[in-house]
Amino acid sequence: MNFCTQCGAGLMLKVPAGDNRLRHVCGSCGCIHYQNPKIVTGVIPEWEGRVLLCRRAIEPRYGFWTVPAGFMENGESAHEGAAREAMEEANARIDIRGLYTLFNLTHINQVYMLYRGQLIDLDFGPGEESLEVRLFSREELPWSELAFQVVCTTLRFYFEDQARGSFIVRSGTIERSANDQQHYRMQLIDD
Amino acid sequence: MNFCTQCGAGLMLKVPAGDNRLRHVCGSCGCIHYQNPKIVTGVIPEWEGRVLLCRRAIEPRYGFWTVPAGFMENGESAHEGAAREAMEEANARIDIRGLYTLFNLTHINQVYMLYRGQLIDLDFGPGEESLEVRLFSREELPWSELAFQVVCTTLRFYFEDQARGSFIVRSGTIERSANDQQHYRMQLIDD
Repeated sequence: MNFCTQCGAGLMLKVPAGDNRLRHVCGSCGCIHYQNPKIVTGVIPEWEGRVLLCRRAIEPRYGFWTVPAGFMENGESAHEGAAREAMEEANARIDIRGLYTLFNLTHINQVYMLYRGQLIDLDFGPGEESLEVRLFSREELPWSELAFQVVCTTLRFYFEDQARGSFIVRSGTIERSANDQQHYRMQLIDD
Repeated sequence: MNFCTQCGAGLMLKVPAGDNRLRHVCGSCGCIHYQNPKIVTGVIPEWEGRVLLCRRAIEPRYGFWTVPAGFMENGESAHEGAAREAMEEANARIDIRGLYTLFNLTHINQVYMLYRGQLIDLDFGPGEESLEVRLFSREELPWSELAFQVVCTTLRFYFEDQARGSFIVRSGTIERSANDQQHYRMQLIDD
């Protein structure tokens, strides 16, 4: 971040009056350019106990499997965004149910919100960002070919809860280890 | 948004290739400047059935009461942000419990995440952004002097759940009516 979006002048890093963090502040018009975490919203689409996954046709993690999810847009709610992603990535119509997992990915400044949802029909298929879309039972699921740790963690909880017959909302943090980029640490908030 | 933060050239509104929404795109370097909802994170701090509210020393809603809450920062989790806000606004140490309400405020592109929390001690007092900080029971609460609809809605649910002895995570949307700026519509997601 180098230039002010309002006036085009150069930005400097400083702590504004009444604040306690370094911000990008315009040296000319004084505009403060805050940077905040982004929300990724998605859904675990279910049909008779199986869940719908998409094989990614885009980077990062081309060729790996994930649930329909993407950045939440202005003007929509997180659950509307989750339904939109299911339509864009899998041409799937979903009846969105409650929030299921909320995970903070502090190393990349993202908050993942994954909802439970019921497929309305079986008329789905790959959107532009997917190579393939299909339903998986717990046993069929390609656990070693999942695109993201947060999706893997959520699906493990999902099938555990499904087996117990009761879904629990979980929130917490998934952090990538500073020493080992392949290793993640998950911590739930106590309720 | 007029100028590119990367190179300082002028921005134009266009739909990038593979996208379906108007974005601010740099006419020179091609950088796409996405705009996404921001997270406001906060906590309902409880002590023996009463909740801690702050009377605002800042606009908007100067002089009205609210729970400790503010914009989530990069590098923190939403629950860490909630605890930080309680310290900044009320000098209060909180043991954060589970997520309680998640409300989409689509008219202002904000997502409110409010957590339940237990005060660790009674050594609290107003921070720079508060005029006054105190504990309220349901009967004492200044319902007509609450700063924000989302806080009012959340506190109503909170005391209902407290009376029943069981707290339920709720998510949904609170929209301001286009015709009447004083009127809000709340819709919960069915679970």
